[in-house]
Amino acid sequence: MPEDQFQYKSIGVIRTPFESPEGMPIQPVGADAADGTVEIDEAYADGLRDLSGFSHCILLYHFHAAADTASLEVEPFLDDEKRGVFATRAPQRPNRIGLSVVEIDSVTEHEVNVRGIDVVDGTPLLDIKPFVPEFDVPNDTATGWIDATESAIKSKQADNRFL
Amino acid sequence: MPEDQFQYKSIGVIRTPFESPEGMPIQPVGADAADGTVEIDEAYADGLRDLSGFSHCILLYHFHAAADTASLEVEPFLDDEKRGVFATRAPQRPNRIGLSVVEIDSVTEHEVNVRGIDVVDGTPLLDIKPFVPEFDVPNDTATGWIDATESAIKSKQADNRFL
Repeated sequence: MPEDQFQYKSIGVIRTPFESPEGMPIQPVGADAADGTVEIDEAYADGLRDLSGFSHCILLYHFHAAADTASLEVEPFLDDEKRGVFATRAPQRPNRIGLSVVEIDSVTEHEVNVRGIDVVDGTPLLDIKPFVPEFDVPNDTATGWIDATESAIKSKQADNRFL
Repeated sequence: MPEDQFQYKSIGVIRTPFESPEGMPIQPVGADAADGTVEIDEAYADGLRDLSGFSHCILLYHFHAAADTASLEVEPFLDDEKRGVFATRAPQRPNRIGLSVVEIDSVTEHEVNVRGIDVVDGTPLLDIKPFVPEFDVPNDTATGWIDATESAIKSKQADNRFL
């Protein structure tokens, strides 16, 4: 493999009520009611130890349901104008890695039950990281073109533009 | 490639003052003073449009300087006990994807100048996502074994345990 390419493997699968990207909530804040289950492959289950002490975790996953075309300019769900892809969370990215911060409900031997999940059922899992506000929450943020209040994001749903 | 494997490519490189993991700050909060530059490959530069409106971004990168062995139980920098790897931010993960939230200082044609960077110079970049508090900041967080105040994290530096 060339030095600038990296091969990652699925370490589990994310189970959710969402069968397709259409109608899915946009980001966990829009999905307060949606529970999901992160199923870890047996081989990686030991890595879940100590996770239950955290209230939230960061899921990294592969956007498997998005069309296999990368675009550098996309029209995000929250806007009608094209934006540079690195200024959006759209799935059509050069590397189709998705990220969601979710609430941990419980951790079993090889499952993490989560709240506020916003991915398609069957999404391949790449990583779980504990959410640590000291690392992950900066002060004084500004959010450019996303002039969306929490309620606006909550009321928006995904459509088929990335299918 | 098997269906459960995914190939990603470097889309740029992160330039920092840190030549090796040893002595590096732990996570951006410990690296207030460290400036860095995210250099995007020419082919992806158009994707940076609109990013300058955001105060912070999430960098995803490949932990290239960590030893090539995954372990499901690791002794994190902030602790002396072994913890499940998914309850830590250690680089020795089944998929060696790193994540840092950094402050955006300026965006040029194919560079993002950032503050508070905590990765080794030459780290391959996988993705840039805008940081959006409505998506990325949950309420009421608990952080399990990480009983570390901001000042404790600030005073800790990486050692060679993951080399």
